[in-house]
Amino acid sequence: MSSKFFAVIVGAGPGTGRATALRFAKAYPVVLLARRPESYQDTVAEINKAGGKAIGISTDATDQKSVDSAFETIKKELPGHKLAAAVFNAAAGFARKSFLELTVEDLNTSLTGNAQGFFIFAQKTLPLLLESVPDSPHPPTLLITGATASVRGSALFSTMAAGKFALRALGQSLAREFGPRGVHVAHAIIDGVIDIPRTSAYVVNNGAEDGKINADSIAESYWNLHTQHRSGFTQEIDLRPYVEKF
Amino acid sequence: MSSKFFAVIVGAGPGTGRATALRFAKAYPVVLLARRPESYQDTVAEINKAGGKAIGISTDATDQKSVDSAFETIKKELPGHKLAAAVFNAAAGFARKSFLELTVEDLNTSLTGNAQGFFIFAQKTLPLLLESVPDSPHPPTLLITGATASVRGSALFSTMAAGKFALRALGQSLAREFGPRGVHVAHAIIDGVIDIPRTSAYVVNNGAEDGKINADSIAESYWNLHTQHRSGFTQEIDLRPYVEKF
Amino acid sequence: MSSKFFAVIVGAGPGTGRATALRFAKAYPVVLLARRPESYQDTVAEINKAGGKAIGISTDATDQKSVDSAFETIKKELPGHKLAAAVFNAAAGFARKSFLELTVEDLNTSLTGNAQGFFIFAQKTLPLLLESVPDSPHPPTLLITGATASVRGSALFSTMAAGKFALRALGQSLAREFGPRGVHVAHAIIDGVIDIPRTSAYVVNNGAEDGKINADSIAESYWNLHTQHRSGFTQEIDLRPYVEKF
Amino acid sequence: MSSKFFAVIVGAGPGTGRATALRFAKAYPVVLLARRPESYQDTVAEINKAGGKAIGISTDATDQKSVDSAFETIKKELPGHKLAAAVFNAAAGFARKSFLELTVEDLNTSLTGNAQGFFIFAQKTLPLLLESVPDSPHPPTLLITGATASVRGSALFSTMAAGKFALRALGQSLAREFGPRGVHVAHAIIDGVIDIPRTSAYVVNNGAEDGKINADSIAESYWNLHTQHRSGFTQEIDLRPYVEKF
Repeated sequence: MSSKFFAVIVGAGPGTGRATALRFAKAYPVVLLARRPESYQDTVAEINKAGGKAIGISTDATDQKSVDSAFETIKKELPGHKLAAAVFNAAAGFARKSFLELTVEDLNTSLTGNAQGFFIFAQKTLPLLLESVPDSPHPPTLLITGATASVRGSALFSTMAAGKFALRALGQSLAREFGPRGVHVAHAIIDGVIDIPRTSAYVVNNGAEDGKINADSIAESYWNLHTQHRSGFTQEIDLRPYVEKF
Repeated sequence: MSSKFFAVIVGAGPGTGRATALRFAKAYPVVLLARRPESYQDTVAEINKAGGKAIGISTDATDQKSVDSAFETIKKELPGHKLAAAVFNAAAGFARKSFLELTVEDLNTSLTGNAQGFFIFAQKTLPLLLESVPDSPHPPTLLITGATASVRGSALFSTMAAGKFALRALGQSLAREFGPRGVHVAHAIIDGVIDIPRTSAYVVNNGAEDGKINADSIAESYWNLHTQHRSGFTQEIDLRPYVEKF
Repeated sequence: MSSKFFAVIVGAGPGTGRATALRFAKAYPVVLLARRPESYQDTVAEINKAGGKAIGISTDATDQKSVDSAFETIKKELPGHKLAAAVFNAAAGFARKSFLELTVEDLNTSLTGNAQGFFIFAQKTLPLLLESVPDSPHPPTLLITGATASVRGSALFSTMAAGKFALRALGQSLAREFGPRGVHVAHAIIDGVIDIPRTSAYVVNNGAEDGKINADSIAESYWNLHTQHRSGFTQEIDLRPYVEKF
Repeated sequence: MSSKFFAVIVGAGPGTGRATALRFAKAYPVVLLARRPESYQDTVAEINKAGGKAIGISTDATDQKSVDSAFETIKKELPGHKLAAAVFNAAAGFARKSFLELTVEDLNTSLTGNAQGFFIFAQKTLPLLLESVPDSPHPPTLLITGATASVRGSALFSTMAAGKFALRALGQSLAREFGPRGVHVAHAIIDGVIDIPRTSAYVVNNGAEDGKINADSIAESYWNLHTQHRSGFTQEIDLRPYVEKF
């Protein structure tokens, strides 16, 4: 696999971010962006120790300057590298509350974390992905992590749904604008609880084995999306445990 | 029809807002909210001249204080009145551009105008609608004007779709939370060009007669949603000219 | 209202069929088609007694000859009348079973009752509706009764979903083909239990008042669809009790 | 890879069927079912020549007895083998016509070829797939080939849409019933023209390179679905050329 391409993941904490970094690191140097070093440093160390190449950069994905600065750092750290895959996996805080108890700030946390964060990331990465079209080992790819709330506005999830619906809308528009130019934009609806330390105490699907989503299985599906031939791009997939109600 | 109930419409300019005001004024005093008096004053005059009752209040729907102030005014102008119907019809500015030419401000104009504006309006009106459940002539109703971009992220419409998807998400969540409490929350997908002075020069659907949507027909459908029995609420309708491609 | 137009309803048993007949009989002579006279005769008598005009014809909606014969009878009984509205409300038998316990006959009962029945009815009525375009009091309308299973294939509902999905598909195709020619084709997703004698013992939505759909409220929504202006046709609505989970 | 499992593909002609057979033959003996030997014999020969194992059986997928007979043959030809993957790729004839020119036979060709054919195939394969759950190398999988018409009833595609919608409905119901029992049921929306000899003269997407779908890319996506971990099943994917309008 060419050493001249790299992948970047924003929202590189435990779970999907970490697993995606590990998966893509088999093929590319990977850059992990997260607000706090604690989120990415173990993963970075693990990849580098295993003979791969990983860089972590503390970045606020909702802040234009912070993202600009991260990409300046990338240019220095990975000189001459072109972008093969960009993964937007940033999480926004979420208040599960009755609508009348929410504040405009709760709404804006979701809109900013999902829509604005992705907007900034997409504007930064799409020009780089377009440059990679002629010689990328696989069609340059922009992947978006969505959720159940991307397609369903449930009671008590209003602000989360607002942000996730907006994120999905952006992904659709970009797929239609940049697909014909050779960039693959895909959106994944993660419909279930991911099996990470933070969720270890959650009992879901009656405690069934594999009733939470294994983050590695998400990462494998992301890799499969990235490696699709341009004559058969997927725009949207759902991913859920076999026992999940839907 | 009881004189103790009123309807409020935000985004009361020519087109859907004006037509809805005229339609609901047959049954209720109506309050028209819009940023500028030019948007509502003719409609207010027309309703009052015809023997109905209408009030116009200059309001910035995206600003909490401005909306608070409007509802203070309503309380004084329509003492003892309860809210039967609230219609969110505010338009956000829209930039039809390639994604890479857009700015974060373009995105936020759409998110603020659609999602934040509706959020503030819904938080203001839902408590009033809940109070009306026991004796409103029809189930108290919160109506939302959506667009093609509410369900489809087209190329060059990314920011508009982000705002409209978010607005639809909020509507779904509120329907699921407040429906069981007796408030009818419905979302209308207006899929076509509305026939108003501003669009008079647009040639759509090959210039077919009635190829643009008559705003009065939207208003009639809104009235029909408002008067649905609670055992048969519609959450979402589409409205488009008979000749529209879809 | 012109006396020269009529409406026809297939599946005219208690519930939606009867209520729609009563509602449309306020404006038009109505023809009720059902397999057995017991399904329609009380409704026919009630309409005629109240000063309206109704005819009942025993018809097997899945059988071309039976439907042909019914329309021959209509021509004799209502000479010179043109068709303003056709409502497809036929029910197919339904087996709620594990997939492996179903037979091909169960599947075909659903496909025939839903898709084939509608196909025959639409081929019979669309030419008549097209003739009415120039002078019908409202745009000639073909209405289709769907269900939750029209948009969701639930476990244990496989054959019902197959039939209802197919019916919805036909409705969409016809809306796109005949809308531009002036005929309004609309599909209603009835998402709940209808309040009829047969369901009186069902406890749904925790026994909430109005927790089952009042058939009159469906009929009113059907009438509202029929009277929409051609510049603002609805292709699909959902109808459900305010307390229904969705 | 275990030699004790096999895959079966119905609709094994050129295009998706052939490509899927070749792809799955890298891991399993494959059985190709098609109406006529011409459809599968070259593929069978190619696989066997290359050191894989393939069997072709002339089968009418819409006929219970023919399918029963095919599975009897499989039992003899692959003694002791368990089923790892079943792919429903049968095509039904299709008449692109105005609705009023279609016959009930056109409708039933589509319903039978899509819904009834899949129903029979699913009833035959699901018990076998359930038996494989404990030790299949990957979760036993039932894959369904859909089309644009699976989610959109276009004008002039009414009968095709009826069949494809029905097929999708069955797939959803089976995913919800058999997913929790460990069988992965997935539906693929093939949204574009497949690049096969029969379509070689079609000019699509302005003749763009890779503007038709490479069947191998579909097969690769099918393989990726088959190998998903049970904690992250996809129920539905879309596949289309990068230049396809959607």
